Order: sequence, then structure tokens, then C-alpha cells
Amino acid sequence: MQDVGYSVRGKVKSPLSIGIDLMGSDAPARELLETILLHYDSFDDPIYLTLFGTSEVFEGIPSPSASLSFFPVQEAIYMHELPLIAIKRKPHSSLCVGIRMLKEGHLHAFISAGNTGALMSCAKIHLASLSGLKRPALLTLFPGHQSEIALLDVGASISYKAAHLVHFAAMGIAYQKSRGISYPKLALLNIGSEAKKGTPELRDAYQTLEHLSDKNHFIFIGNVEARNVFQTELDVLITDGFTGNIFLKTSEGIAFNILKMIGDIDKENHSLPLQRALYELRQKLDYSKYPGALLAGIDKIVIKCHGEGSSSSILSSINNACQLIKYNFIDKVKEQLQSLLFSGKRT
Amino acid sequence: MQDVGYSVRGKVKSPLSIGIDLMGSDAPARELLETILLHYDSFDDPIYLTLFGTSEVFEGIPSPSASLSFFPVQEAIYMHELPLIAIKRKPHSSLCVGIRMLKEGHLHAFISAGNTGALMSCAKIHLASLSGLKRPALLTLFPGHQSEIALLDVGASISYKAAHLVHFAAMGIAYQKSRGISYPKLALLNIGSEAKKGTPELRDAYQTLEHLSDKNHFIFIGNVEARNVFQTELDVLITDGFTGNIFLKTSEGIAFNILKMIGDIDKENHSLPLQRALYELRQKLDYSKYPGALLAGIDKIVIKCHGEGSSSSILSSINNACQLIKYNFIDKVKEQLQSLLFSGKRT
Repeated sequence: MQDVGYSVRGKVKSPLSIGIDLMGSDAPARELLETILLHYDSFDDPIYLTLFGTSEVFEGIPSPSASLSFFPVQEAIYMHELPLIAIKRKPHSSLCVGIRMLKEGHLHAFISAGNTGALMSCAKIHLASLSGLKRPALLTLFPGHQSEIALLDVGASISYKAAHLVHFAAMGIAYQKSRGISYPKLALLNIGSEAKKGTPELRDAYQTLEHLSDKNHFIFIGNVEARNVFQTELDVLITDGFTGNIFLKTSEGIAFNILKMIGDIDKENHSLPLQRALYELRQKLDYSKYPGALLAGIDKIVIKCHGEGSSSSILSSINNACQLIKYNFIDKVKEQLQSLLFSGKRT
Repeated sequence: MQDVGYSVRGKVKSPLSIGIDLMGSDAPARELLETILLHYDSFDDPIYLTLFGTSEVFEGIPSPSASLSFFPVQEAIYMHELPLIAIKRKPHSSLCVGIRMLKEGHLHAFISAGNTGALMSCAKIHLASLSGLKRPALLTLFPGHQSEIALLDVGASISYKAAHLVHFAAMGIAYQKSRGISYPKLALLNIGSEAKKGTPELRDAYQTLEHLSDKNHFIFIGNVEARNVFQTELDVLITDGFTGNIFLKTSEGIAFNILKMIGDIDKENHSLPLQRALYELRQKLDYSKYPGALLAGIDKIVIKCHGEGSSSSILSSINNACQLIKYNFIDKVKEQLQSLLFSGKRT
């Protein structure tokens, strides 16, 4: 990565430089802009934000600070567009311009709440993959038994081999280490706990991870059934992109519905402790407040926010990006991958 | 099927004859026996029950009625045993004897809470598959938005082709028709709602089902995302066995945990309406109270109860079996399959 003391559009960047795509999400670009304007000076770290949007988004709004820069672009990619066609036809879109600026070293991280497929395709085309990795994975945090679990893949690709699952494991371990967990507990999401359960790919990955766990500073707890995920002490949960998506969205859906049902019941007569507990539970289970999904496996930090609820998600994504930059996440993933690729009997 | 007026061990059967395997589940056989003894005369229909268990299970307990028969067997298959080896080594187990009696026409339905793999393998070996079907599927009911949704496959097999999904659809439609729903609403569980989402198999099944829905007395509502399942009016949800298992167990896990957390909060101060609502919600979301999974796709009625909570599940499975027998479920599935197999452009 280039040094960080150069200028972007005439302004000197602070150590943490983050680009944000305001376009193409379910939330209006102006709403995202206003959320950021309201909170830009309240982040945990001193940061320099570059906001990418079509010129009308910034109309009549002056940049309030030297650490917040507006970057008008010509066009935007929207949710309904086919990824590869969109990024080819719209090279001057906020998404493509942002990814290119990340590539050129003008940004440390790029965040978008837009078209997931377009973001992934653009990142794959313009950014280098980490050595030894065939494909990136979307990594997300979700509320587990006692702490937050890193789940990957949640939708970057739907077919998979055992080697992909092992690579996902390396990325998940590095991610949780960046959050201060020295010995992450890792499991495979499967339809039974025995080593022989599931697809041939899962069985193969089980053997490799079991073999690797002694040497690689993580604890392999084997297969975990979907029912037991929420009762297990766990830091990293590995699965393919199709299953990860189903798992995450099932959790979201049922949590939302149960809390809504309980919230609707006899609201006025809820005791104060119950009201407080329900509020806390709702905060904990509100997936839209969690950082977006990290596109792990490329040599830059790219985060995909939730399309819905993206105003709150974008703020936590900014904090998450800061954390990953400060921890040198990319370097740590490289180390983990080296360690797994060269000590694994089959990766 | 043979006529139903013949004798089993000297006793004349009532019109609905159901066999129950007491062995090999997580609940002790004696506990299952006691549950059945307590409720055997409270079912919606007049039934004749044959209970299969090793002789010590029945020791000291006289059969209380001519409509309840004990059938002592020599051995049992347990949860940890490998299915194919177990059914080969233990032909005189409660599971194998029960399936053979079903085959020979002495029973209309057979229910077991034992080893799922052994039950499926034994059924596949001894019972005929429905014409045109390559494999059976496990079909289960779960609590949806307003009514109960039939979900299949929930674990009979983990690989799949488009034709399997279409066959699962035929079985799900027939099942919901047996429950009085004239025009079942059917969807594919997928990672997005657009027709082009998901695996090639899902895309192919989407096209076939869309084509068939005009002619076959069901409503195809397309792909549904896991998050939206609980907000969608839906009667049949189609997926492969791996994804179905993940979906179902994620729902169970998170529902159990949220209700437990809320139940633990400030219990004494819950208002009466809240207590009642929580009780109802718990009943609705207690998956162990639902009937077991039907092994759909063979020409007899075989039901696999939940290994846990099987005492309450066995009672609802008996009622469910009665319903399926009375509706001539097997014939109805055959009709649906004929209709789909001969009008589908690709099944």
C-alpha cells in the first residue's frame, strides 16, 4: 500500500482514510449523507472520509470539515442491475470510482451499501486476491451465545470445495484475532455433529481443520448443528455462501418476528425490567446495526453494508473498517493463510 | 394394500392401524410406552395401535385394551449405529419388523423416533417407491406466518437435481391438500427472490414449477428468501435436504433461545396477558410438539418423530398418520405426481 500522507483532491488525509459509496442502496443517498454528517466527528478514531455520490446528492451542502470530503461522480449502479454489465457500462459510477481509488492507495477501506454482486465483481476485477486464495468470501458478524460470531461465506459464491472452506477458516480466524480473540473457537456449520456428517466437501474440510488446529492458534470444535449455534461458545462459523445466507436470514427473520409479536402484546403493562430487557434484546438482535459484510480474501478492505437499515449499519461499518486498518487485518490474513497453506495436508 | 379386516396376532384391527417403534430414540422406551398408555383412547379417530419394543419394555404391563397390542421383538437399533450395517445385522429389531409388517399390509402407517438413517434405508429397501420418483424426502410442518408450512426435504438426502425439487413440490402439494388446503401456495427457498437467483438446479426448478402452476391446482409464488418465510402466506416450501435441515434447525434454535431469554426476565412481574401470550407463542414455536417428519415418496406412510421431545411428538404423529390414512394420502400423491410428470416440460 502507498504511504498515507498524500493528498486526495488537495486535502491531506489523516491516517485512517475511508471511502463511502452513497449510491444504489435501499436508503436514499441523501439520507446516508445526512447520517454521516451528523456523526462524522463521533467515531472512535480520527478518520478522513471521502463520500462518493452523484453531484445532486451534495447540492447545497457544504463540507463541514477538512476531514470530510465530497467526491461527485457521473453515475450510479442500482440494485436491479446485472453486476458484470453494470460495472462495464458504468466505469464512472460511485462504486467503480471508489474501488479504483482504493486500488490506487488513496483509501484504506471502501464501504458500499449498493449492489452486492457489482461490488464483488468490481473488487475482484480491480483488486488483487490474497496469495493462494481462489475466491473471496463475505464475512459477517452475528449475535451468538455470549459474543459475536464471524460467519463466512454469507453469499459471495454458492458452489464450494473443501479448500475454500479451509481458506474461509483462515480469514475468519484472522478477523477474530483482529477483534482481540487470541484463540478463536471455530466450527463448521453442518447437519449433524459427527465428523462424517454432511457433504464430501465438509467431511474433507473437517479432517483438514482438525489436523491444522494443533498448530495454528485456533480451537477446532468440529461440526455444529444450526440448532446449537446459539448455545455454543463460538467465534468463527464456516459454511458455503448459499447455506450461510440461509442461516443468517433465517435467524434475522425469526428473531424479528418473535420480537415483534412480543412487542405488540400488552405493551402498556410491560414492567420496567421487561421493557429494558426487550430493548436490549432488540438491540442485540437488530442485524441492521451490525457492521456490513467484509469482502475477505482480497488485498484491500471492502465492506458491503446491509441494503436496508444502512444508515445505522454504515456507522458501525466505519468503526469496523477503522479496527481492521489499525490491526493490519490484510497482513494478518496473509500470515494465517501462509500458515494454513503450508502446514495443511490438503488445502 | 391388503384389506384391513384381518388379524394381527389374533386381534381384529380397527380401520386405522398404526405401528409404533418404541426403541432407539433419545427418550426411554418405557417413557414412550407410558405416554401412549395415558393417551391411547383420546385420539381423534378410533385406532388400533401396535407397539414394537424389546420384551423387557412391556414387562409387568398388561395391555389395557383390545385396540392396543404389544409386539415384543428381539433387538433394537440405536442412534449411534450406521444405518445400512444396523438394518443388515438386526433384521429382528423393532424398526425392521415394523417396516416389514407395514409392507405386508398389517399396518396402515409406521412411526419411529429412532435412527433416521436406518428408518429411511429400511423403508427404501423394503417398500416400493412411488412411480416416477427417484428418492423420498422428509416432509415436516413448521409454524409459518398464519398457518403451518410443509417443508421438504429436511434431510433425506443432501445432493439434488431440479427434478427432485419438482417431485418434492408434488408431494408437498398433496400433503397440504390432505390438510384441507385446495390451492396450496408453494415457494422455493432461495438466497434472493429473482428467478435467476441460486444454483442452476433451483433456477431450473423455478422454470418448471412456474410452467406447471397454471395447470396443477397450486399457486407458485416463486423464490422466497429465508428472512421473508415468516412474513409470507405460504403452504409449501421446497428446498434440498441440507438447506432444509439448516433452515429448520436455525428456526428452532433461535426461537428456543429468544423465548428462554424472555421467559427468564422478571417472570414474577409479567402481566397476565403477557404470560398468556408467551405461553401461546411457546406452544406455537415448540417444534417438538409438531408431528414427526413424513418419509414422502414411498407407497406407505412412514413417520420419523423428533428424537428429543418424542413423547409429545409421537402423539401428534399418531393424529397426523390418521389424517393421512383417511385422506388416502398415498393415492393423492400418486395423482399429483402423474399430473406433474406428464405435464412438465422438464421433470
